[in-house]
Amino acid sequence: MAASSGPEKIHIGLLGYGTVGSNVHSLLEQQADEIEKATGAAISIKKILVREPSVPRAGASPDKFTDNFEDILGDPGISIVVELIGGTEPAFDYVTAALENGKAVVTANKQLLSQQGFYLFQLARQKKSQIRFEASVAGAIPVIKVLRESMVAADLKSVYGIVNGTTNYILTEMNRTGARYADALARAQEWGYAEADPTADISGKDAAAKMAILASIAFHTGVGLDDVTCTGIEDVSSLDIAYARELGFTVKLLGVAKLYQDKINVRVYPALLKMDHPLASVSGAYNAVFLKGTAIDEIMLSGPGAGGRETASAVVSDIISVVARRGAPGFLEYPVAYSDRDFYPDDDVVSSFYLRLEVEDEPGVLGAIARVFGEHEVSIQSVLQKGRGARAELVMVFHPVREASFAAAIEQIGGLKVVRSAPRPIRVEGKDDE
Amino acid sequence: MAASSGPEKIHIGLLGYGTVGSNVHSLLEQQADEIEKATGAAISIKKILVREPSVPRAGASPDKFTDNFEDILGDPGISIVVELIGGTEPAFDYVTAALENGKAVVTANKQLLSQQGFYLFQLARQKKSQIRFEASVAGAIPVIKVLRESMVAADLKSVYGIVNGTTNYILTEMNRTGARYADALARAQEWGYAEADPTADISGKDAAAKMAILASIAFHTGVGLDDVTCTGIEDVSSLDIAYARELGFTVKLLGVAKLYQDKINVRVYPALLKMDHPLASVSGAYNAVFLKGTAIDEIMLSGPGAGGRETASAVVSDIISVVARRGAPGFLEYPVAYSDRDFYPDDDVVSSFYLRLEVEDEPGVLGAIARVFGEHEVSIQSVLQKGRGARAELVMVFHPVREASFAAAIEQIGGLKVVRSAPRPIRVEGKDDE
Repeated sequence: MAASSGPEKIHIGLLGYGTVGSNVHSLLEQQADEIEKATGAAISIKKILVREPSVPRAGASPDKFTDNFEDILGDPGISIVVELIGGTEPAFDYVTAALENGKAVVTANKQLLSQQGFYLFQLARQKKSQIRFEASVAGAIPVIKVLRESMVAADLKSVYGIVNGTTNYILTEMNRTGARYADALARAQEWGYAEADPTADISGKDAAAKMAILASIAFHTGVGLDDVTCTGIEDVSSLDIAYARELGFTVKLLGVAKLYQDKINVRVYPALLKMDHPLASVSGAYNAVFLKGTAIDEIMLSGPGAGGRETASAVVSDIISVVARRGAPGFLEYPVAYSDRDFYPDDDVVSSFYLRLEVEDEPGVLGAIARVFGEHEVSIQSVLQKGRGARAELVMVFHPVREASFAAAIEQIGGLKVVRSAPRPIRVEGKDDE
Repeated sequence: MAASSGPEKIHIGLLGYGTVGSNVHSLLEQQADEIEKATGAAISIKKILVREPSVPRAGASPDKFTDNFEDILGDPGISIVVELIGGTEPAFDYVTAALENGKAVVTANKQLLSQQGFYLFQLARQKKSQIRFEASVAGAIPVIKVLRESMVAADLKSVYGIVNGTTNYILTEMNRTGARYADALARAQEWGYAEADPTADISGKDAAAKMAILASIAFHTGVGLDDVTCTGIEDVSSLDIAYARELGFTVKLLGVAKLYQDKINVRVYPALLKMDHPLASVSGAYNAVFLKGTAIDEIMLSGPGAGGRETASAVVSDIISVVARRGAPGFLEYPVAYSDRDFYPDDDVVSSFYLRLEVEDEPGVLGAIARVFGEHEVSIQSVLQKGRGARAELVMVFHPVREASFAAAIEQIGGLKVVRSAPRPIRVEGKDDE
């Protein structure tokens, strides 16, 4: 490149101009000098797709806006499409068309990737284009780049952590203040950490989408949203949190992707974690991901899981990675899902459990319950008797057990006359006997 | 690439075959299948430079070994040189020659990079080659890749953390068992966490070299080993650790690179950290690095800081990154040190301090000492009086103060008749009044 011609110019077509989109725009402008020095390219947004182009918007000149995707797709000067509209439609059509036309794609869309990722990765490969999606998981934390580019030879065995900021904020509040779930949720909504309809977050579905993406990349196999077994935090009560604390645990919503005998198991569930576990101190809207593998022992990445500026930072770093790798084969020119692994059934996983059981306050109750667990070869590690009369409870912790056996025991326990409410066990991670 | 021709073949010349070298060799063999699927290339080690090629070595065929660097440099089939011999000579000559000859370089050599990095980066750029050095800092933790490729637009303001496993192991032992420094060091040597001559580690020089590398990359400016002010852990006593614990702190050796008014300050020193600080729970030989910036808030990466297999994993991930980017412009084709920042003087930094002072057990001592601090406008936050008679001590914590003022006060304090030993203050990080 001759000095007189100036830096190479790279033009972006941006789809969507919400919080993240406008932050991407301003970050590219503020950091233009740094980015040009680091990559040798001047990167700018040429067109922005929005529903109402005529509405005046701060920070971007009105003539950039369009409501016609063809203005971006058909512009040969635009080499990168940044998709920030979310959801599967029309995002899927736009991303597919961009890749078909040889444009690189950067997206923050976890719904799209957890449902159509496998197809899109293959398409990018066929078209010798790039698709990057750092912002789809764990905000500003560069876990996707690390998994794709630094962990190829690490022989990963598990990827797990806290990948949903909303539920982590709620659980942190419940733990910190003793608040009930509904009150902590209301506070999260008040402070902007939870949406008006928080279903996707609290049900664990958001975390499940992210774990599907992480598992696909970490284990080189197709994992879709439907392959992730998912339990949310709706049934975690302030009593559970208080008892957990008494036992030396805190409660977190975990995403866990693990290999068992080379088969993969991916799940999202609330779990009790020892207070001194590094994930126990990940609080508020922060995220943290552990990578465990033969060659690396255990690496943790943590940081802000969301926020307009943080997510925009991840999008911009993807744009820079696309630019820095222009002309080179990318990791994803080769099949992502080359391992094509089988799934390991949830029933066969061995886990530890905690159980709070509302029971009748009468003699022989514990004996009756212990007998059922014994019949299913479920071994009780500890029992606390709590409350009296109408509030009598048993708080039990179990030794590791095959989940199918535990589930069978729990079903039978739930049918006992002396048990007054549906048993809702919570898994325990990192206990000494594991 | 036609299917019939098989995967592209990439040959490596390996310099050195110690613990890391032999682990790189076996990791490349064990993970060959994964690596080929991810990159489309078959990567293998063609030649290995050692002092005594005729000595039989496990895991590698004897005809790979040579004691002549020219066998590697002059082989056009070798496109990547992996330097694992350490030290500055002859490593510098080998790496320079490899880059001059258009070969990519992967190195784990922190001494070399902290002293000649700037020159080597420029050379790689001129030759349109790549130099990668993930293993030079923090073992398996991919902090170099994250800094170079994910943080370009993050507007970083500080990079700090625990980057030396030996001293962290020693301090963790002292904190856990109350052991004296000499005993903890002996234990570290016994377990292989410290070398027979541990000077480079305990003096902080090893951490300083790593911080020079991290600061160069994070702030795009030339930082050499000599630019890093360095205090080791030799003077941290078990009393300091006990008093720190009483005050709610633990002691860690920190590396800190920070921007002050766009100027850079890089230092290594022991520091008191609040028990609930995320770095406080990084124990044993683990490392952890925090990245703070406008666009990312705060990201932490942690994991094993050393170990043959872990360091080899970082080397192999660099090799894979070189291969994946073959033919593309790399980040380092552009000047690394484009910011060319001034240094911010240590004297002007504002810090908090802890001070244990052995004093005469007589009336008026505290008054005399407090008067000196007052004259230098150093404000005392708390004082504990410890011991009696010949073991009388004052344990003091100070509000944040300009370091030059504190140093002047300390010098005068050291000259007081009532003070029985040289005052050795320790910095305090993350206190509430900062």
